[in-house]
Amino acid sequence: MSGLLTIAGLGPGSAALVTPEVSAALADATDVLGYAPYVARVAPREGLRLHPSDNRMELERAGEALNLAAEGRNVVVVSSGDPGVFAMAAAVFETLESYPQWQDVAIRVLPGVTAMLAAAARAGAPLGHDFCAINLSDNLKPWSTIEKRLRLAAEADFAIALYNPRSASRPAGFGRALEILTEAGCGERIIIFAHAVTTPRERVEALPLRDARPEMADMATLVIVGNSATRRVGRWVYAPRRAS
Amino acid sequence: MSGLLTIAGLGPGSAALVTPEVSAALADATDVLGYAPYVARVAPREGLRLHPSDNRMELERAGEALNLAAEGRNVVVVSSGDPGVFAMAAAVFETLESYPQWQDVAIRVLPGVTAMLAAAARAGAPLGHDFCAINLSDNLKPWSTIEKRLRLAAEADFAIALYNPRSASRPAGFGRALEILTEAGCGERIIIFAHAVTTPRERVEALPLRDARPEMADMATLVIVGNSATRRVGRWVYAPRRAS
Repeated sequence: MSGLLTIAGLGPGSAALVTPEVSAALADATDVLGYAPYVARVAPREGLRLHPSDNRMELERAGEALNLAAEGRNVVVVSSGDPGVFAMAAAVFETLESYPQWQDVAIRVLPGVTAMLAAAARAGAPLGHDFCAINLSDNLKPWSTIEKRLRLAAEADFAIALYNPRSASRPAGFGRALEILTEAGCGERIIIFAHAVTTPRERVEALPLRDARPEMADMATLVIVGNSATRRVGRWVYAPRRAS
Repeated sequence: MSGLLTIAGLGPGSAALVTPEVSAALADATDVLGYAPYVARVAPREGLRLHPSDNRMELERAGEALNLAAEGRNVVVVSSGDPGVFAMAAAVFETLESYPQWQDVAIRVLPGVTAMLAAAARAGAPLGHDFCAINLSDNLKPWSTIEKRLRLAAEADFAIALYNPRSASRPAGFGRALEILTEAGCGERIIIFAHAVTTPRERVEALPLRDARPEMADMATLVIVGNSATRRVGRWVYAPRRAS
């Protein structure tokens, strides 16, 4: 009996953005594990066990998934967006390193449309030139590292995608990030707040960074700060391909 | 007669990674435009005009697409990967800005799985922590800008995805990029060469950056340089979620 662990990305929200590869993996699965709101996006069916868990349970979930696969089950761990971007894939490999008894489990990672790509598509093309992605959560890294990266990203003139900008447990970080970017000379840049993109609650707003307020973001928001050349044409925002 | 211009991403190569949203757009299209190898991925059918063009024709292609949509056609411009990442979306908005007569054309951008996500999935999870994406082509920006961004990205300890690392017309740039990263202290980092991912010619290799040679990359290669903590577990490469 040979099991399989698939780490799959469900895309940003809409079923029309789930790749056929991921849909096929879910159709073959015996067990689906993940943060409860993501597992809720998987249709229940006979023979499929759903294992929803809490947000902070990444390592426990990874261990449970590896264990089920080692027992011969066909296991899918689901993430929103892409599983390799601030999501479950790294947690599974971290667990694999700590528990060598699972080293022979067959694993595959199936990519998905990560939130910044869907947000950028709705806004126009703000990631059409060099860019970076920073997770604003300081659960797993010191805030000083985030500050340093924001300053260097501004100096490099990257467009900057900010994941997990704000949560109830970290109300101050995003406001501080806006201050740092302003100090770094980004006040005139365009900032995009993309809330719940590709879902019925979608809301996308673009404004000068100097007018942005911390409460414009929550955990369902993906923020993109344009580079110094990012501009508007009609209702669209885009980064010119040419740079000096 | 109201036309539509859809700018769609076909994903990295495999049909199993084309989103249902993009497949539906192609099924409804009257005209598909794009770089010839990407148009070749669209199945011909009655009533569909295919308009393949050369690689450097982005602005001409964007103008032709806007013009056809303005005439009432249902036009899809295809890019490989995601259309917003170093691809056609920015070229369309740039053209729209230059030619206001097309400002009322209905436009939508449909995201796709960009090459770095597919490459990362094959390798493990090298983009599991903060990262950046840099286009190494100096067709549209000076090489000095690329050098500056590489140095700042190394200082920020980002994982670094390098798009378009090497072409026949730019044989020296990637070798220079490897030198800059070595000077910046990245010699011991893991570098991943992901060639033609999700196609039958796929080949993925990971090695220490100090052992990398320029000829390991061509235009079908996506390169990912790990951050300073990126590590191996078995055959996988991943960025730990925790950072100091």
